[in-house]
Amino acid sequence: MAAHYTLSRRDRNPAGTKASALDTPALVIDLDAMERNLCRMARYASQHKLLLRPHFKMHRCTDIAKLLLAEGGAVGFCVQKLGEAETLVGAGINNIYVSNEIVDPRKLARFAELAKAVFAMKAGPAPTSDVAICCDSVEGVERLAKALRHAGAAGVRVMVEIDVGQNRCGCLPGDGVAVDIAKAVVAHSDVMTFGGIQAYHGAAQHHRAPEQRRETISKVVDLAKQTKAAIEAAGIPVPLVTGAGSGTFTLEATSGLYGELQPGSYLVYDRDYADNVADESQPHFEHALFVATRVMSTGSKLNMAVVDAGHKSHAVDSGQPTVYGRSDLSFRNGGDEHGILEHRHTIDGAEAPLPVPLLNELVYLVPGHCDPTFNLHDTAVGLRGGLDHGVVEKTFVIDARGCCY
Amino acid sequence: MAAHYTLSRRDRNPAGTKASALDTPALVIDLDAMERNLCRMARYASQHKLLLRPHFKMHRCTDIAKLLLAEGGAVGFCVQKLGEAETLVGAGINNIYVSNEIVDPRKLARFAELAKAVFAMKAGPAPTSDVAICCDSVEGVERLAKALRHAGAAGVRVMVEIDVGQNRCGCLPGDGVAVDIAKAVVAHSDVMTFGGIQAYHGAAQHHRAPEQRRETISKVVDLAKQTKAAIEAAGIPVPLVTGAGSGTFTLEATSGLYGELQPGSYLVYDRDYADNVADESQPHFEHALFVATRVMSTGSKLNMAVVDAGHKSHAVDSGQPTVYGRSDLSFRNGGDEHGILEHRHTIDGAEAPLPVPLLNELVYLVPGHCDPTFNLHDTAVGLRGGLDHGVVEKTFVIDARGCCY
Repeated sequence: MAAHYTLSRRDRNPAGTKASALDTPALVIDLDAMERNLCRMARYASQHKLLLRPHFKMHRCTDIAKLLLAEGGAVGFCVQKLGEAETLVGAGINNIYVSNEIVDPRKLARFAELAKAVFAMKAGPAPTSDVAICCDSVEGVERLAKALRHAGAAGVRVMVEIDVGQNRCGCLPGDGVAVDIAKAVVAHSDVMTFGGIQAYHGAAQHHRAPEQRRETISKVVDLAKQTKAAIEAAGIPVPLVTGAGSGTFTLEATSGLYGELQPGSYLVYDRDYADNVADESQPHFEHALFVATRVMSTGSKLNMAVVDAGHKSHAVDSGQPTVYGRSDLSFRNGGDEHGILEHRHTIDGAEAPLPVPLLNELVYLVPGHCDPTFNLHDTAVGLRGGLDHGVVEKTFVIDARGCCY
Repeated sequence: MAAHYTLSRRDRNPAGTKASALDTPALVIDLDAMERNLCRMARYASQHKLLLRPHFKMHRCTDIAKLLLAEGGAVGFCVQKLGEAETLVGAGINNIYVSNEIVDPRKLARFAELAKAVFAMKAGPAPTSDVAICCDSVEGVERLAKALRHAGAAGVRVMVEIDVGQNRCGCLPGDGVAVDIAKAVVAHSDVMTFGGIQAYHGAAQHHRAPEQRRETISKVVDLAKQTKAAIEAAGIPVPLVTGAGSGTFTLEATSGLYGELQPGSYLVYDRDYADNVADESQPHFEHALFVATRVMSTGSKLNMAVVDAGHKSHAVDSGQPTVYGRSDLSFRNGGDEHGILEHRHTIDGAEAPLPVPLLNELVYLVPGHCDPTFNLHDTAVGLRGGLDHGVVEKTFVIDARGCCY
């Protein structure tokens, strides 16, 4: 049984499987749509002469990372977690930025080993070998320096993260602690170099109205500019300001301040991003990530269908999914393993129920949030030729799934 | 790097690690508390002469399943997904009830193979070998019979699931389709036997007030009684009514109707269950599942701490976690990988901030919902001796994590 089990876990939808025959629930990537998204962002970054460093946390799949390096214009990756970085380096990828703080000594020791491994690589798929990390306290710099020195690692770029209104990590912007951090980095120039400023505003990505996003990012840019000026006034050059996500990157890109963009979600998009009112300056992105699900019961009601995907198959932190191509159907949470499809509209006075999908019929859900949805699945199947008539071309292993440490 | 990565994925907190030294984020089981919960439910079921069939979907860990069989009074397990059943059978466990519908022919073929594998076992940890499943349509029975016959499988118990107000799966209760389903099962007595009625009300588990739960379950019991009478009136004995969860099981248990209880969450409890106003007839259960997390940044505010666990480490479908033993602290969602701790209270006019945990300090979160939280982690560490001074005794592999198919 164990062997059979392993088989079913990996090979339920092998290459050649028709879309219409997908075993469910299954995480599905529309390869054509994903590749169009990938090209649009690569072109945008290139046209604006900006570095593109997509966020690996979004998909946690090294095969997708390799595609972004080969064809998507990526210079390397952002990660939030050391386990993600280790997975990338384990796959031979040689340009990593931990856009987050690490202060635990054991984790810093792992990070130092990772840095040594990257710089020991003779070559890699990224154009240059690079390891960078964020600090938002002098204490963080001191701990990092100690770990690097202890491991005999050097050459790590350190970015000072400033709080630009995200109210999460990041020190106060301006001429206080941010400058102290930069000075501390310079004081440890035997093991690290000062890389510049991390200035990212997560909440702004989902401000619905373009003018709201413009207003917030305008403040972000002001705070980053002030901080850059303060650090430079202390005699320390600021080589780079980095940040931006899939909802606001055109604003950071045209600020004249940012040299690098960190979006991730653009590659597959999700329901939450699609709920934003589009900014005309932004390239068009398409949904490319879906959860294929089938009707497993029609329950006891006439116009209801129960599907085999619940919130163990799609993340609900940003709300419920929608049913792709079926705006007439609503999706209601049915628990960990179930979803409920119902008609949005009823016909007044009509006896006949409105049509819902039949027993075992396939529908595609558009997840509310792509990042944690990828993180629920071991694999994603890549469909070529569309959701209706496409065929599975390959299976992506989500090899950093669960790497939350 | 690949070998190092694998090591960090599995052995971050090996046996012997002190609680105070846990690498984070980590899913933590307080073994003493879990074993007390396990004993309390075993005693309750035994005293009421009821079968106890805990839900495997809660933890998806076969080592915990074996503990429930050995010491927790379990006769076998409920599962919601075939992949869970395959994992259990792969681990040698021989008593499985799929308390859910399966209609896809490929899945039914897998189910038939599973049934054959169970009945081919000479012995197993469960007192008897058994395979059961739910149907809520005659079509479902026909499809199942075809698959069993094709595989040469037989002896599967089939339960008719009725909709008792859950508004999800389950046919109409009473003397209509439920009786037709029972008749269809009897018509295929070469491959299946009629096992009785599945009557579970999920939403009732989290009705906050005891009187609200009593009122709902009273209706559930009435509907199940009517259905039982209707099936018996058609000449078909109803050997069992099964259902109940950790919020209402005392009501089903004392109804005189139910012969089997299916709770899962009692084993570790969660914030959502603890938010119920307790019913005095219910045994006391303790929190035994936690996410250990550490402060990774103190951000730019004076009374705030950012921890390294976000909703990729704990499920938020039932709301945010609480901070164990620190009712003075609130937990705010900081995204996929971050959580924000803040003081619930500020001192009017005071300059000094209220104390929050320091950089790299450990706190334990009580997840909002245990089932999908287990499903985010590859492993859980079992602490013996309490959260403060305990030591890791063993690591549980969540071996059916991600088995959503």
